[in-house]
Amino acid sequence: MAFNDRFLRACRREPVDATPVWLMRQAGRYMKEYRDIRAKYDFLTMCKKPEVAAEITLQPIDALDVDAAILFADILLPFEGMGIDLEFAKGEGPVIHNPVRSMADVANVRVIDAEEATPYVAEAIKILRRELENRVPLIGFSGAPFTLASYVIEGSGSRDYRYAKAMMYEAPQAWHALMEKLAEIVTRYLKMQIAAGAQAVQMFDSWVGALNPNDYREFVMPYSKLVMDNLADEGVPRIHFANNASTLLELVSEAGGDVVGIDWRINLDEAWRRIGYDKAIQGNFDPIALFGPVESIEARVKDILDRADDRPGHIFNLGHGIHKETPVEHAKALVDAVHKLSKK
Amino acid sequence: MAFNDRFLRACRREPVDATPVWLMRQAGRYMKEYRDIRAKYDFLTMCKKPEVAAEITLQPIDALDVDAAILFADILLPFEGMGIDLEFAKGEGPVIHNPVRSMADVANVRVIDAEEATPYVAEAIKILRRELENRVPLIGFSGAPFTLASYVIEGSGSRDYRYAKAMMYEAPQAWHALMEKLAEIVTRYLKMQIAAGAQAVQMFDSWVGALNPNDYREFVMPYSKLVMDNLADEGVPRIHFANNASTLLELVSEAGGDVVGIDWRINLDEAWRRIGYDKAIQGNFDPIALFGPVESIEARVKDILDRADDRPGHIFNLGHGIHKETPVEHAKALVDAVHKLSKK
Repeated sequence: MAFNDRFLRACRREPVDATPVWLMRQAGRYMKEYRDIRAKYDFLTMCKKPEVAAEITLQPIDALDVDAAILFADILLPFEGMGIDLEFAKGEGPVIHNPVRSMADVANVRVIDAEEATPYVAEAIKILRRELENRVPLIGFSGAPFTLASYVIEGSGSRDYRYAKAMMYEAPQAWHALMEKLAEIVTRYLKMQIAAGAQAVQMFDSWVGALNPNDYREFVMPYSKLVMDNLADEGVPRIHFANNASTLLELVSEAGGDVVGIDWRINLDEAWRRIGYDKAIQGNFDPIALFGPVESIEARVKDILDRADDRPGHIFNLGHGIHKETPVEHAKALVDAVHKLSKK
Repeated sequence: MAFNDRFLRACRREPVDATPVWLMRQAGRYMKEYRDIRAKYDFLTMCKKPEVAAEITLQPIDALDVDAAILFADILLPFEGMGIDLEFAKGEGPVIHNPVRSMADVANVRVIDAEEATPYVAEAIKILRRELENRVPLIGFSGAPFTLASYVIEGSGSRDYRYAKAMMYEAPQAWHALMEKLAEIVTRYLKMQIAAGAQAVQMFDSWVGALNPNDYREFVMPYSKLVMDNLADEGVPRIHFANNASTLLELVSEAGGDVVGIDWRINLDEAWRRIGYDKAIQGNFDPIALFGPVESIEARVKDILDRADDRPGHIFNLGHGIHKETPVEHAKALVDAVHKLSKK
């Protein structure tokens, strides 16, 4: 089998035989094979057993025919080594028992040695590179500094980021000190993944859409830029995904990365114009549209491909993680439609 | 005391002596006076007793010196008459026990007679017009068809609108039938409020930010436009607020209204350019920035006023409802800063 390098070529804005496609959270609960493993282990155990994480990572490669694998892991894995007391509470999502709210709390955050803190991540990547050698590239990933900061400050998911924003506004020194540490942690965590074999890395700024452009520029952008700059010489494409960030796209692009990921709230042609054609773009199918009939999925794929207009550098993806109730055959129909409709 | 008509003048894009300001959810839990009443009644009872709703409506007028009153009510009040079995569950927000998921369910939705279904709303408005005669104008409001549809279909708050979108994509006939009924219900509900004395009306499309522009145009915009068109000859300003809708602003403006309300995710100057200068604009202070110190509140007010650039037709407001833990003195500082910094 020949190695499928469409994804890597598109990251570098080189011509491809068909538009590459993968799905955020493609290894997940919508697949029966995943649920079967999940029935045996709790979530963190699945992440921490390299053979299990590798097996889950491979499931959608077999089932969907996607053009890239993304390591099965969670953006909160580095927290344990940082001294953050994290629990995945049943039905509630992550809960942090010692949220960071003051300069003293920030001082207690440990800047991890990524090999020591998350050795199982490196191990899973090594296993996967062997398994994937003649198939598709492997993507590593991390949360972005803001998204990690919002978790450690809020102590859980949030709708309004009341504590994270309050720290920005009331205690900017503590905020900047925390973000400096997080930028270094994210850098180390991603460099470790690249050293272990990740052939591209994605930085997820999942919650940055809560900010207005001025706050993003002052409180977040310098640290996202620092991570991207730190990885510039690592020789692998850097994907920078900012969710719900249509008004921040120019700034996200300026912060850096070879590929900018977008959600579905903006049309791809407008987004690419604002990001700049010197970057590749990833997205932007509404994950909930996978609940629609196959004909409507195909029509939406066509619309997005039309907006990409055959410009080199489009990686097809969802605009957010796949929903856990998505019919697998609809996910497969999406992948097939992208390949069929973009075939040169 | 002379009647303060700054708000109404700004809605009509007429010159004003200072920029008018009010705060979405200004009658709410951040005020001790509100919590004292809340301790005596459950939420729905507060809405349904006209004297109580009127008293709560007046609290921020006295405490904050805002330039408009907005009726204390909830966007879900019309549901009872529609046959929607709604409960405000403790700590969970609204729960609907008979969500609308099929054409048969849609057929069962009753198009209310607003006077019969919500007589207490009309009564509260009449009381308030007497109380407010020499003070400030009174705003009535409703949820927009999409936001009401998302509640009745999802059956509760939602992060992804999985059922609402699935109805759009899988059962478009049921979707359009429901939206047609909701547009008529919203029209009747707002006309009733205007007849009772509301001097302006706001339509809240709180959840429309979940949609991409193509879906907004096809599945939502015609019904928002219908409501706005139906109210065009009522002689009061129509405010059309779409939350988290930075990429939809051109379409929201096209759908209609005299004033377009925006959140904080976009800078006001860019938003107004996209909305068009033939509309007034309302917004766009981040409600969470009220947790910052007074100096930072003033600096943010100045930035927004600078972006409005003395163009007639700016109503200062938050970009979303005020947070329940906001310090009252910070809300007052915001109002004072708007008046002081915009004084002619």
